[in-house]
Amino acid sequence: MLFQVRMDVKIPSDMPADVANEIKAREKAYSQDLQRSGKWRHIWRLVGEYANFSIFDVESNAELHDILTALPLFPYMEISVTPLCRHPSSIRENDI
Amino acid sequence: MLFQVRMDVKIPSDMPADVANEIKAREKAYSQDLQRSGKWRHIWRLVGEYANFSIFDVESNAELHDILTALPLFPYMEISVTPLCRHPSSIRENDI
Amino acid sequence: MLFQVRMDVKIPSDMPADVANEIKAREKAYSQDLQRSGKWRHIWRLVGEYANFSIFDVESNAELHDILTALPLFPYMEISVTPLCRHPSSIRENDI
Amino acid sequence: MLFQVRMDVKIPSDMPADVANEIKAREKAYSQDLQRSGKWRHIWRLVGEYANFSIFDVESNAELHDILTALPLFPYMEISVTPLCRHPSSIRENDI
Amino acid sequence: MLFQVRMDVKIPSDMPADVANEIKAREKAYSQDLQRSGKWRHIWRLVGEYANFSIFDVESNAELHDILTALPLFPYMEISVTPLCRHPSSIRENDI
Amino acid sequence: MLFQVRMDVKIPSDMPADVANEIKAREKAYSQDLQRSGKWRHIWRLVGEYANFSIFDVESNAELHDILTALPLFPYMEISVTPLCRHPSSIRENDI
Amino acid sequence: MLFQVRMDVKIPSDMPADVANEIKAREKAYSQDLQRSGKWRHIWRLVGEYANFSIFDVESNAELHDILTALPLFPYMEISVTPLCRHPSSIRENDI
Amino acid sequence: MLFQVRMDVKIPSDMPADVANEIKAREKAYSQDLQRSGKWRHIWRLVGEYANFSIFDVESNAELHDILTALPLFPYMEISVTPLCRHPSSIRENDI
Amino acid sequence: MLFQVRMDVKIPSDMPADVANEIKAREKAYSQDLQRSGKWRHIWRLVGEYANFSIFDVESNAELHDILTALPLFPYMEISVTPLCRHPSSIRENDI
Amino acid sequence: MLFQVRMDVKIPSDMPADVANEIKAREKAYSQDLQRSGKWRHIWRLVGEYANFSIFDVESNAELHDILTALPLFPYMEISVTPLCRHPSSIRENDI
Repeated sequence: MLFQVRMDVKIPSDMPADVANEIKAREKAYSQDLQRSGKWRHIWRLVGEYANFSIFDVESNAELHDILTALPLFPYMEISVTPLCRHPSSIRENDI
Repeated sequence: MLFQVRMDVKIPSDMPADVANEIKAREKAYSQDLQRSGKWRHIWRLVGEYANFSIFDVESNAELHDILTALPLFPYMEISVTPLCRHPSSIRENDI
Repeated sequence: MLFQVRMDVKIPSDMPADVANEIKAREKAYSQDLQRSGKWRHIWRLVGEYANFSIFDVESNAELHDILTALPLFPYMEISVTPLCRHPSSIRENDI
Repeated sequence: MLFQVRMDVKIPSDMPADVANEIKAREKAYSQDLQRSGKWRHIWRLVGEYANFSIFDVESNAELHDILTALPLFPYMEISVTPLCRHPSSIRENDI
Repeated sequence: MLFQVRMDVKIPSDMPADVANEIKAREKAYSQDLQRSGKWRHIWRLVGEYANFSIFDVESNAELHDILTALPLFPYMEISVTPLCRHPSSIRENDI
Repeated sequence: MLFQVRMDVKIPSDMPADVANEIKAREKAYSQDLQRSGKWRHIWRLVGEYANFSIFDVESNAELHDILTALPLFPYMEISVTPLCRHPSSIRENDI
Repeated sequence: MLFQVRMDVKIPSDMPADVANEIKAREKAYSQDLQRSGKWRHIWRLVGEYANFSIFDVESNAELHDILTALPLFPYMEISVTPLCRHPSSIRENDI
Repeated sequence: MLFQVRMDVKIPSDMPADVANEIKAREKAYSQDLQRSGKWRHIWRLVGEYANFSIFDVESNAELHDILTALPLFPYMEISVTPLCRHPSSIRENDI
Repeated sequence: MLFQVRMDVKIPSDMPADVANEIKAREKAYSQDLQRSGKWRHIWRLVGEYANFSIFDVESNAELHDILTALPLFPYMEISVTPLCRHPSSIRENDI
Repeated sequence: MLFQVRMDVKIPSDMPADVANEIKAREKAYSQDLQRSGKWRHIWRLVGEYANFSIFDVESNAELHDILTALPLFPYMEISVTPLCRHPSSIRENDI
């Protein structure tokens, strides 16, 4: 079951650089694990913004919530979630 | 080069059903041709809305504009375009 | 799996009253069937508005989309969908 | 008498973790007491957000205001209140 | 129990003047009956707009909904409802 | 001459409680003096919000501005002012 | 007593040109009479828009409302009103 | 050449009062010099807000920008600029 | 003196194609005349939208207003105007 | 390939002046290098605002993202990007 998620990151300007870097390193590892598992299907950067559009493939709303709130950057993000479903014109079997 | 595009369809309520159906049939064929060519990578329906999120892979802004304005439903759509680029955490080689 | 849905109804002012009444009667029957089946858990009227807040319990995004787009009033509605999950403070076992 | 309430929580980033945890523990206990009493009928988490949709069943506007302003997290919340009433299509006797 | 209600009137430009006048006359009579009964405590015009701010004193959300949807101009209004309660600084016993 | 005023209070989270309490006490006294004088006709709390809707009866725009900017909480408020006039359907002689 | 008023004109596209011209001629005469009387102090066009910013000098909210609702173009306007008062830095005696 | 300018002032709450007062005194002197020169034609206070509407008469966009960015309060303001021109109904020769 | 102008075109869906085409042909000729004269410096299409961003170089606000309101498509456009001036980092002598 | 970019600068009020000046000096040098290379075609100041409208000519979305995120002021900017393409009425060969 697919969801589009937009995440905007706002790291407080007074966070020390090494703290920020450590959080970002954990975020990257966490994201790549989920990508490898197939849960986090796509992640794209928005040009000129510290933000991404992502596509998640999860079993339930609850699973998506657990994934998102466990993001190391979650406390510094604004997140919006849009449920998706198969488009009748799609030719891709797995875009559902 | 990737772009996210959101399309909201508003067909006038006084359009005869057969006219609307003929336009929608052409829209579907046009979309599927572009999907097969690889230009229109993804198309998803937003749950509960007559709208889609799509991902296009084009050579240039101009190519995307030509594709979008040639949509049979273009006169009845609101379209917003967001340029994307590779996310540094992405593990997919072709998500660029 | 639960979703909150807000529906705002805008019936065109030039629709004949009997046509509107027939659609509304079908809408009511359709809604009550889904309520009896447990898919449409709650429906409340917003005070002073021709609109409702509803809670749906469905298997998937796709099922919700099919239910909503089959509403007899669907062509005359604006719909927004918010995915929900269990709140950690909830004491109700089935509010998930 | 029913009200839908949306609460968005914004805890200041410089609040010490133990202070935050103590407030959240009181919030949970307070919420569960009100749920058991029937005043706070439902509480759902919005997927991906530190926010909830709730349904309250109170005697009056004043009672709802007293309940909301006594929330331990009230100083850190944005709250919006929507009065509800029975929907003519509802089949649930107590959804009023 | 008090509610603030804002009503914005948008009469279609193609409604014949006598039809509009007849509806407005019924609206006025209906409003004045409710004012005399004490249900509709105040009604003020917004300067330069075809709109009003009103204060209603009703027993319940349901009563307010019934009053508003029975307005002769209801099909041509946008209405927003804000529940009120006594302000701790108020010196007026009946502003509750 | 009547004006509707909405005031939203945002006290900085780092203001010491005794400072805040002293300002609020002065605010209450100031408001009640103006209520007794007839200048501040009504004040209602918005349910669930640290905000009020008020009705002022003043001689001029300038008098209203002087009253509002002298509020002890003025530096911590967002204020919006809407000029009102008598509604042609009003039956209250003094609602002007 | 001064008010800033913004007026945006939206004449229906199906209004015959001679009807529109007749209304605009009456609007101009009406506006110029009020300008000569001193009630309508200033009127400026917004560049590129069918809209104006105006300054009115009236005795009361009610007088302003009467002036605005008597505009021949009133049924085709969106109007917003902002009450003004003397700025403490102003050197113009009559800008009050 | 005329421009309407709205300025909203937001002085940080932690600025010492004497610093704020010194800036405001310079702001007032600067504004009055420009008023006397005819560049700053009008300045009005918005009722209930720490904001003004002003009319500037300048030779060019660049001159207006230089004037605005030299305001002592400029770092603490939000400014919006609207270019104006003569309204065809205006009877004032210099309102251009 | 430079201005950025955004124009969004909304041609009514019931305008006959030949009428629309004739207006668009006049619009194009008019635009190209102004481009050749140097008044209309740039015009770009927004990807996926029936809209343009343009840069105008005019003597005054009034000249810009006259140019814009004489556009054959003016009655079917929404226009927003932003005054520009030289950026201190610009290396282009004529970008002023 | 052209993009319009709007940048709004918000430097924290507690940044020391010499730090801010050093960043601004690097920003200017960086911008001018890109202007000389032809990548940053235009940069204009918005009158009265600490913001610019710019036109970039880049090979790809990725190149634009790299340019923007390397801006010395990037952490203090809000940036919005609009893809452009040649307008069919343009007479400038290089406005593509």
